[in-house]
Amino acid sequence: MSPSTTLFAGILRRYRRRNSVSRFIATHSRPALPSIEYPLSHPIYTIWAANTSLGKTLVSAGLSTSFLSSPHRKFLYLKPVQTGFPEDSDSRFVYNKYSEFFSQHRPEFSVFASNHVLKASVSASEAFSRGGFEVERDEDVSCGNGVVNLGLYEESKLQGSENWEMKGFSKLVCKTMYGWKEALSPHLVAERENARVEDDELLEMLKGCLGSELESEKGEVLCVIETAGGVASPGPSGSLQCDLYRPFRFPAILVGDGRLGGISGTISAYESLTLRGYDVVAVIFEDHGLVNEGPLSSYLRRRVPVLVLPPIPKEMSNNLMEWFQEALSTFHSLEEIMQSAFLERTSRLRNMPKKAHDIFWWPFTQHKLVPEENVTVIDSRCGENFAVHKVNNNVDLITQQFDACASWWTQGPDATLQIELARDMGYATARYGHVMFPENVYEPALECAELLLEGVGKGWASRVYFSDNGSTAIEIALKMALRKFLFDHKIVSDDLVTENAESRVDLKVLALRGSYHGDTLGAMEAQAPSPYTGFYQQPWYKGRGHFLDPPTVAMRDGVWKLSLPQEIETLKPSLEDLTFSLRENIFKESRDTSNLADIYHSYIWKTLQLIIDSSGSTRTGALIIEPVIQGAGGMEMVDPLFQRVLVKECRNQKIPVIFDEVFTGFWRLGAESATEFIRCNPDIACFAKLMTGGIVPLAVTLASEAVFEVFVGDSKLQALLHGHSYTAHAMGCTAAVKSIKWFKDSKTNHNLISEAMLLRELWDSDAVRQISLLPAVHRVVVLGTLCALELRAEGSNAGYASLYARSLLQKLREDGIYMRSLGNVIYLMCGPCTSPQSCSNLLNKVYSRLEEL
Amino acid sequence: MSPSTTLFAGILRRYRRRNSVSRFIATHSRPALPSIEYPLSHPIYTIWAANTSLGKTLVSAGLSTSFLSSPHRKFLYLKPVQTGFPEDSDSRFVYNKYSEFFSQHRPEFSVFASNHVLKASVSASEAFSRGGFEVERDEDVSCGNGVVNLGLYEESKLQGSENWEMKGFSKLVCKTMYGWKEALSPHLVAERENARVEDDELLEMLKGCLGSELESEKGEVLCVIETAGGVASPGPSGSLQCDLYRPFRFPAILVGDGRLGGISGTISAYESLTLRGYDVVAVIFEDHGLVNEGPLSSYLRRRVPVLVLPPIPKEMSNNLMEWFQEALSTFHSLEEIMQSAFLERTSRLRNMPKKAHDIFWWPFTQHKLVPEENVTVIDSRCGENFAVHKVNNNVDLITQQFDACASWWTQGPDATLQIELARDMGYATARYGHVMFPENVYEPALECAELLLEGVGKGWASRVYFSDNGSTAIEIALKMALRKFLFDHKIVSDDLVTENAESRVDLKVLALRGSYHGDTLGAMEAQAPSPYTGFYQQPWYKGRGHFLDPPTVAMRDGVWKLSLPQEIETLKPSLEDLTFSLRENIFKESRDTSNLADIYHSYIWKTLQLIIDSSGSTRTGALIIEPVIQGAGGMEMVDPLFQRVLVKECRNQKIPVIFDEVFTGFWRLGAESATEFIRCNPDIACFAKLMTGGIVPLAVTLASEAVFEVFVGDSKLQALLHGHSYTAHAMGCTAAVKSIKWFKDSKTNHNLISEAMLLRELWDSDAVRQISLLPAVHRVVVLGTLCALELRAEGSNAGYASLYARSLLQKLREDGIYMRSLGNVIYLMCGPCTSPQSCSNLLNKVYSRLEEL
Repeated sequence: MSPSTTLFAGILRRYRRRNSVSRFIATHSRPALPSIEYPLSHPIYTIWAANTSLGKTLVSAGLSTSFLSSPHRKFLYLKPVQTGFPEDSDSRFVYNKYSEFFSQHRPEFSVFASNHVLKASVSASEAFSRGGFEVERDEDVSCGNGVVNLGLYEESKLQGSENWEMKGFSKLVCKTMYGWKEALSPHLVAERENARVEDDELLEMLKGCLGSELESEKGEVLCVIETAGGVASPGPSGSLQCDLYRPFRFPAILVGDGRLGGISGTISAYESLTLRGYDVVAVIFEDHGLVNEGPLSSYLRRRVPVLVLPPIPKEMSNNLMEWFQEALSTFHSLEEIMQSAFLERTSRLRNMPKKAHDIFWWPFTQHKLVPEENVTVIDSRCGENFAVHKVNNNVDLITQQFDACASWWTQGPDATLQIELARDMGYATARYGHVMFPENVYEPALECAELLLEGVGKGWASRVYFSDNGSTAIEIALKMALRKFLFDHKIVSDDLVTENAESRVDLKVLALRGSYHGDTLGAMEAQAPSPYTGFYQQPWYKGRGHFLDPPTVAMRDGVWKLSLPQEIETLKPSLEDLTFSLRENIFKESRDTSNLADIYHSYIWKTLQLIIDSSGSTRTGALIIEPVIQGAGGMEMVDPLFQRVLVKECRNQKIPVIFDEVFTGFWRLGAESATEFIRCNPDIACFAKLMTGGIVPLAVTLASEAVFEVFVGDSKLQALLHGHSYTAHAMGCTAAVKSIKWFKDSKTNHNLISEAMLLRELWDSDAVRQISLLPAVHRVVVLGTLCALELRAEGSNAGYASLYARSLLQKLREDGIYMRSLGNVIYLMCGPCTSPQSCSNLLNKVYSRLEEL
Repeated sequence: MSPSTTLFAGILRRYRRRNSVSRFIATHSRPALPSIEYPLSHPIYTIWAANTSLGKTLVSAGLSTSFLSSPHRKFLYLKPVQTGFPEDSDSRFVYNKYSEFFSQHRPEFSVFASNHVLKASVSASEAFSRGGFEVERDEDVSCGNGVVNLGLYEESKLQGSENWEMKGFSKLVCKTMYGWKEALSPHLVAERENARVEDDELLEMLKGCLGSELESEKGEVLCVIETAGGVASPGPSGSLQCDLYRPFRFPAILVGDGRLGGISGTISAYESLTLRGYDVVAVIFEDHGLVNEGPLSSYLRRRVPVLVLPPIPKEMSNNLMEWFQEALSTFHSLEEIMQSAFLERTSRLRNMPKKAHDIFWWPFTQHKLVPEENVTVIDSRCGENFAVHKVNNNVDLITQQFDACASWWTQGPDATLQIELARDMGYATARYGHVMFPENVYEPALECAELLLEGVGKGWASRVYFSDNGSTAIEIALKMALRKFLFDHKIVSDDLVTENAESRVDLKVLALRGSYHGDTLGAMEAQAPSPYTGFYQQPWYKGRGHFLDPPTVAMRDGVWKLSLPQEIETLKPSLEDLTFSLRENIFKESRDTSNLADIYHSYIWKTLQLIIDSSGSTRTGALIIEPVIQGAGGMEMVDPLFQRVLVKECRNQKIPVIFDEVFTGFWRLGAESATEFIRCNPDIACFAKLMTGGIVPLAVTLASEAVFEVFVGDSKLQALLHGHSYTAHAMGCTAAVKSIKWFKDSKTNHNLISEAMLLRELWDSDAVRQISLLPAVHRVVVLGTLCALELRAEGSNAGYASLYARSLLQKLREDGIYMRSLGNVIYLMCGPCTSPQSCSNLLNKVYSRLEEL
């Protein structure tokens, strides 16, 4: 046990340490992963291998010999998962080999070396105690998952050739986190030994180890985390290890395979790491005389260094000391690569805010209001969370923020879907890249169209028109609708004769005030004047619409209430029509026969008459609405009854109806389409944002066959002459196919209430009600993945240009929530698969900050 | 050799067959791959493995036992690359094992079995002849690459229990294409034995084998192609095998690894295949008692079947007959999976045109003019080529078409870049998906912006505004330019006071007739009335511009000539200014001092005066041009001198200048930016299309700091309030970073003339001149990756709506060129890395078809 080479006696003792990590109580199928935060003050690397038995531990040990060749250093070796324990213990191997190496090359400084095994399966701990060591069971922990605190601890002081107080000392810290007895794959032994460890538990412990060992370290530290088996070998819960460790996204050292066939295994392992977003910093492997480094370097285009270790003696009796000596220069090179990659990364991260500040032109952003120090550096995303780089007191760290703005309302993927999408995006690029769409067909575009017509377009749509974003989808929808109107009202005819229609007719749209349909001019023309549309922003904007003030609904002081515009208010609706005991009552079809429905109808009918009367040439060529929720206009819930009455009346008058579902579509409001809530169908509808799950831009305009037919004729000029370069690009369609299926399958989306095809309630009703009772809160709108709050504000504090919410949002970012505001309206937004637990977590933090206001 | 079980005597003889495959003569570094065409009449599968020695050949042999259990069938086994030959011969193994199996289970029908080795290295052939066989060298072939025709052929008739004439017979055809002596990786032995085989040569032979063995077969055939080593093991040229066979994209059977660590290796191998666009139809592996199928099935979400073979006896003496018998039901299942996947694929491919016809709404397409049978089914893309599914005489096949419309001018990648982009897209999805841009920074967006400012924006641009496509980039550019104009001319001021500017000023743009800037309303307003803009298409279009008729240049009858608009013609330019002996003279700066430059200037100056004079309120707020080539307007080359003079005069008058480089940017015209040709810089420029290499939509608007500063102030309302959901999405930025670097690096882009930072001439000058002399051709414009031809046409045959080119294009598609037209203008477009040889190939075919016209 204690090698003869250690000068200071090895101490093996029971080291009692209570498990300080709070255990996650899994109440539903997919526990939220722990919040990831770790210091970037020192390099941390994960050691991966292309297969088992390629020498990961030799590389770890070799790095310790290289790194601990100077005083004042600390080498931290972590082995999260050890099978075959206690016979096999990689942390003990590193501890022993370094100790032996040290004694042979005794430098001028001393080293405190330790090896620690934190937890083990009952079987492993029994095998361990049969070896003569007493093990105390921790009943709290052993209960349930069969894992006990083992607390094996051994340490030694390796005495250098000089007095350590003169020359200083270094530290070698080796830790095994979990040990299992059988020498098999972790997922098998965890099951066989009835000692399963969940991913969140393992990550939490890893985070704890890193925190305690790194945070207060001022000197040089190198940390390596050694995985078990190959890159995609399952961990103890069954998750593949490359998926398991993904939230940390530590840079990787890949131990390759120098044997025959090893080029292939090494490249494939590299690609599996790449497909999880890891940065591989170096590839290293044992020389088998096959010059595998040639093809590997060429594959890597020399951007990733490939190092070759001397052949490893195979005799069991060999203590490898000569080999370590021979390999030392290679390990020095590897260490150098790791150090310089680390420095490059942190220096780049530190410089990013300034560079961004100097060369980006952010949309919708007044640059003068964004000082350099407020720029958020996003290192990566994992599911709903950003990994953000920060510098606190001159110490770099990676911390986590929940993407509660859903990156402009686009996001849907959980961590699992994100990784599946990564594979699909790789596949789609390799199979298609992008290919020409018009007059052609290819699988992802066809499957995407089929899914759309069976899903959000079911019951009314029969054609799919692809474009790039919500704004272009709206421009296309308007062109469709206006042409349909011109035909239906015989203003133009089949043979393209317009009989001077241009001068006779001034086509307008009917829209709701506060609705928003995009930023290109055509889409802007369909919205009422707003801060986005002024002469200052778009000198060409006219506002080609009649804009109605809609009645809206919100929770105020704990109750869902209607707010009516003046003109409707004067028609004196019954009081009982104006409040709702439950949110679902707002959507009830029974409201169609209410007195309020009549009032809405007569108001709408009169307005439409007025438009026609006011000018002989002005015609209402289309109705365009955001069903249920008007997003960019301030997260206003429009009374769905009002929208239903409006749609029906337009249908009566042969005015084509457009639903802008760019924001509301694909489960944003808890159903695949918002038609579920307003219970009527459009002639044309636009989708984008969540359609691809939140990966790449793609939009569609769906249309009924009647709309399509207006564009069919003998002349090319009768066709819809609008298109974008990447129309129906294979990448977007592939992402959409995957995401559409994922969200509506209860096997992958655990939030789905299959019978109703609705999401379960994600935002805790009580918490929402409590928030609405806060004095700082004016109104709350909560539906599906959205929970929006209007802060009570007056004067310049209200409205889009208001900066009122800024300091609140800044504090919430410190709490790990990345929110944005629309003036004094703030909102939380999650994905269709986000656990209600995560949502409650967000609500709690928001509640606390609002209380302070 | 001849197993005792064959009843008919085995014949081993020299089978002389001249190599009928025409060999590609490599004249530059990257030979074009052969045109891929193969029948889809029968299933063809590639057998891959996660590592060496996992039993690929056993699976092949097992499939032969399963498939050849009925008469009237043919099992085709191809082994393209065999090392360790002649000791190791997988084709002989399959031949022998099947023969042995047959004799034990003697069915009622007979089988003709054969094994054939086509070519071998000299070393292998010598080893072979030392074994007693005479080998005749084929000097033509052995010369240079050390490969000789071996022509080993052995056959046997396996007599069934009944007279074969009664019950019919089946065939087993085994072929080794190339053999090398040493049992090492093919890339090593090819080098050591001085017998290298290029990828194109190998693919051509494979295509030949498939053609000759499959084309005339009416009965059931199953073909397997067995690879060597692991999925990413190098082939004889050094290309990874998964890359080498990619042009065929045969569906794959993956032989996995059932050992400890095998889950990881199998998953990684699966991912490497996925990253090349292969469809893996089944995973099969030998049982080692570790239940690896559990995690594998769970990883594959049960969408890909996982089959387990019984443990393989390890004794060399075992003839495996019992094992084959035991494994037969598994092989039956595998065969069934392969058959049904094949039927599903072909039936889907056959149905796609009808489905597309029924539910797509293609942009810019008159559906009535696209009969179902004209719909092109694109199965995949590999570099510049589509793999297209066709049914000829009721036989399915996959054939190749060069994407000569560059999929609406977006395409750039060669096959190598495409695969590298696949890995990058996977990585970007896994690392970021998409993350919020405003006020944030992340690596791909920053690096992309840096590359843009160092590249296409060098010398003038300092800010990058991201959006989704050319049209949105133009809308943003217009908003920037008009605001800048309003400030510079003091129409609005810093504190947003517009003093009723809206009613005082009517802002227009100056643009060239025939230019095209996109389909959203704002972009359309900046272009002259055209078929795209009529009341019928966009009732809101006004045409907010002054549209100048530009002078254009083209090659007519072999000579580059200027065409001047009437107004300039009347100013009587010198005749010597109107023709150019060389194209490069058109771009010479010395023309600035010509008489023509003065004429241009006075024409422009007068026009600008006229605009101001005509109405007090109308102001020219911006100049917008497509530099050098106007794309969608008919591929017109505008005289660069005219554009230069125009830009200078606008600068003088403080009119902001926008370059629309959506089409011209990123090497489309042979330089990274078209400013290289017109030799002056804009204030604002738009890029899209080729920027991502042709993978996903992404656009940018670059601006000078002076433009940016107009938007900086205390109020959010002064900011540019325009943005799209996926602004600066990580996927697009990652693709752009890779592609921008790839195209401008002479290590990856062999077309680059490094000194000049220009592409070499891609289109053979003589061929182009010959084409311009054809009576059917009115004019030719050739520059960079573009070669456009206007067909001589009159009346309704000319212009955008013309259908004149349709039958010509249909014929060219049969020749393997996918072209599109802009009315009577047709064009060829390649990528920045396409070899001039491929271009010449295209020109030749076009020339032939034009001659027929």
